[in-house]
Formats: sequence, structure tokens, C-alpha cells
Amino acid sequence: MVDNILKLFIIGIGVGNPEHLTVQAIKALNRATVFFIPDKGTEKAALRHLRTEICARFIEGDAYRFVDVPMPARARNPEDYRSTVAAWHDAIAATYQRLLTAELADGECGALLVWGDPSLYDSMIRIVDRIRANGVALEYEVIPGIGSVQALAAQHRIPLNRIGEPVLITTGRKLGDTLPDDIGSAVVMLDGDQSFRRVDQDLEIFWGAYLGTEDEILISGRLADVRDEIETRREQARQRHGWIMDSYLLRRRES
Amino acid sequence: MVDNILKLFIIGIGVGNPEHLTVQAIKALNRATVFFIPDKGTEKAALRHLRTEICARFIEGDAYRFVDVPMPARARNPEDYRSTVAAWHDAIAATYQRLLTAELADGECGALLVWGDPSLYDSMIRIVDRIRANGVALEYEVIPGIGSVQALAAQHRIPLNRIGEPVLITTGRKLGDTLPDDIGSAVVMLDGDQSFRRVDQDLEIFWGAYLGTEDEILISGRLADVRDEIETRREQARQRHGWIMDSYLLRRRES
Repeated sequence: MVDNILKLFIIGIGVGNPEHLTVQAIKALNRATVFFIPDKGTEKAALRHLRTEICARFIEGDAYRFVDVPMPARARNPEDYRSTVAAWHDAIAATYQRLLTAELADGECGALLVWGDPSLYDSMIRIVDRIRANGVALEYEVIPGIGSVQALAAQHRIPLNRIGEPVLITTGRKLGDTLPDDIGSAVVMLDGDQSFRRVDQDLEIFWGAYLGTEDEILISGRLADVRDEIETRREQARQRHGWIMDSYLLRRRES
Repeated sequence: MVDNILKLFIIGIGVGNPEHLTVQAIKALNRATVFFIPDKGTEKAALRHLRTEICARFIEGDAYRFVDVPMPARARNPEDYRSTVAAWHDAIAATYQRLLTAELADGECGALLVWGDPSLYDSMIRIVDRIRANGVALEYEVIPGIGSVQALAAQHRIPLNRIGEPVLITTGRKLGDTLPDDIGSAVVMLDGDQSFRRVDQDLEIFWGAYLGTEDEILISGRLADVRDEIETRREQARQRHGWIMDSYLLRRRES
């Protein structure tokens, strides 16, 4: 007997507005029958609800099911960030491998729904590559999605780049005291520590949370002028919703 | 008599696959009735055809029309790149301002269809801001789209970033001899000069053209090994189609 070949979509679902879904993503949702949903301590009920809402809204019929994927905890503030993340990905890959193999019958197609776009600061592609490296026969396709980088720019109605200039995409952890000399704009993601507080306060910030949803907050201006407002409103919103996804563009002011 | 308030959508339409359109973009297409289509010497019939095909496919009914927008030529290899681009944008803004004012009747909504995502290396947001700065009453909304950055990663099925590391988005013109020291990955766009020929040939490249379409070409590997293949296939494809849109990710090989 030959083992099944597992079939899987990794689908970018946008950052909270169901209308971010592309036609390609909706087709993939309709080809899949098993949806693997991570059960994260940090991902609250509201976020889980958005995934199931997207399925209910865009899938014709109800011939699909959800499988919960328990997420191992990750060490906070580890000494060696990269190796800790690698070990964590190994543990997640083992869990997914077990569930994909157990749940996907011959001919069935699974789906992993990823916030934003699967190519940026998301681990699903790496996890699936690990499962394949373990010798599991697995075919997969990646469906791009609207990420917070694009949603942030669209909602603020700004270009990310100065004319002909580069843009850095980075994390709160990697953000220095200011922008690198030759880079006029940077988008900061995954910043739970509000690193904008410790950079050059003469930079312009375009900050946004819950982008494209009815809870959206947009604040922009010179950091020195709007930093306190962002801090206050961010904390109020985080407490009210129980979670927050925010990102921001920093750029040098035109001289 | 009070002047009309002009209403406009700037809509990201993806990079060639009509299924990149989002639900939000399709709704905006259906609210607009006048589509302003740039008539570029460099944008060939195939690209124009894709815009009209998207309208035909996603707009219900046929109560809409196209308006051609003649594009002023831009100086090639100018001495002062930024000021030349600024003058060129002024000329384009004047043309759009004249046509928007002449063509949009009271209550009508216009649309500008932008390849990829409107926030990255596209001038429509700046042009519309210029028209508003000229005192024209104009309301507009930006609809994000799948850009070549995301499509490139999805088709190669790779993450853009190393774990927790930044990503630089840049142009062929701004790309140096190698990647900046603290940046392991860079996406290069708008590179008509194949700048990958003059960078550190030990970098890995993930190159793609006509992403997500039936003409798609994907090539990846160490630059020294695949550079010639990319150059040859790029030139063959450009001659066959009459145009090419390509982009690539460069990254340091894992040590």
C-alpha cells in the first residue's frame, strides 16, 4: 500500500477585514475540507471567531470541518532567540505532522489560514517544509494575502516608499535608535514593546491597529507629538478587546 | 453653485492573475462607473487588455466606461532623478485633474486600477494628493492589492524574512554590491538593468516573472549558478511578450 500524498493550502486571509480575501483564496477555501486551527493561548476567542466566520461566509455548503491544533508554549525573552524559535517550530511541526496524517483522508485537502500574508513573519511555510523534510509526502500551495504592511498604507492612504527609495520591513526587536542612514522609511511589525518610544522622536509615525475593521484606530504625526496618544489608546484598546494587532511606518520628515 | 466633490478609488489589482482581486476590490469596481486607464508607451496592449478583462470579469452589467489618460514621457537617466520624477508627476497630475473634472458627473465614482499594491513604487496616491493640494474637492479610498513582493514569495513558497530578521524592499537603482551587513534578505523591484549581475554572486536569488499567470517563470539558486539562465530566459520572454514584469529576492545563504 502506498501512503497518501497529503494536500494542503497555506492561505493568507488578510488582517481582520473578511473582504481582504482574494478570489484565489476563496477558491482554495472551497477546495479544502479540513481546516487546521491553531489553539493559541495568546490568540483569543475573537481571532478564532474571525477564521470560522471567513469559512462560513465564503465556503459554499457545509462539507468541511475544523481540527484544533494545540500550540506548545514558547520561552519568553530567551537567551538565544533563533535556536529557541527553531526548537519551538520543531515541536509545532511534530504536532501538525501527527494531525495532518491522522485527519486527511485520501483525496481530501487541508487548509491552514494565516493572518496577513504567509511570507512575512509567519511560520507556516517553515513548518510545512519541516514536515516534508521528515519524509512525509505532502503537496502544498501558498496563496498570498493582504498583509498589515499594505493595509496600513492603504488605510493611511500613503505610499510606503519615498520616490525611488527603499523601505525596510522590520520588527520591534530589530529596530535601532533611528532609521539606518540610507533608509528613509521602515514598517515595524510584531512590536509588543512599543519600540517607537525609544527611537528618534523627530521621526514621523503612521500607526494603525485592527486595520480595515470597525475597530480600526489610525494615528499619525511627529513621534514627539503623538507618542503619548498612541500609548494610551493602544493600551485602552488592548484591554477592551483582549488582544491587539498593530503596526506602524516610521519615516524621516522631508527636509 | 457648489462644485462637485469628485469620488475616486485607487484599487490594487494584483500582478497579472485576475484571481488576485480581493472582495473589497471587486466591490469598489462595481461602485465605480468611470475607469481612467493610463495610455503608456511602455505599457503594451497586453497590459491594457488585462485591466479591461478584470472589469469585464468582475463588474456586473456594463454601465461603466473607460477614459484614456495620455501619459507624458519621462526623461531617461536624468541627472537629478528625484526632481525629474517630481516634474513628471506634476504633468501627470495636471492631466488627471483635467480628465477627472471633465468626466466625473455629480454622484459618479471613478477608479484608478494599479498593478500590484498602490503603496509600493506606484505614483497614483501622490498624484491624487497633488490634485487635492491644487484645491480640487476630491474624496478617495485606497484598496490594497496583492503586490509582486507577496506573489514572488507565494509562488516560490518561501518566507521573505529569516526568522525574526528584517527584509529590505528596494530598487535595482538603489541596490549596492551586496546586501547591507545587518540585512539578510532584500526584494528588488523595478530593475530593468538586471542589477543582480553586479552583486555578490554567492547570494541566493529567487527570481520570478509574470507571477501567478500561465506565462510565469520561476528560477532560484546561487547567483553564480543561475544568473546566466535568468538573463537568457528573461530576454527571450521579454521579446516574445513585448513586456516583462519581474522581481526577485536576494538573500545570504545560511552558514
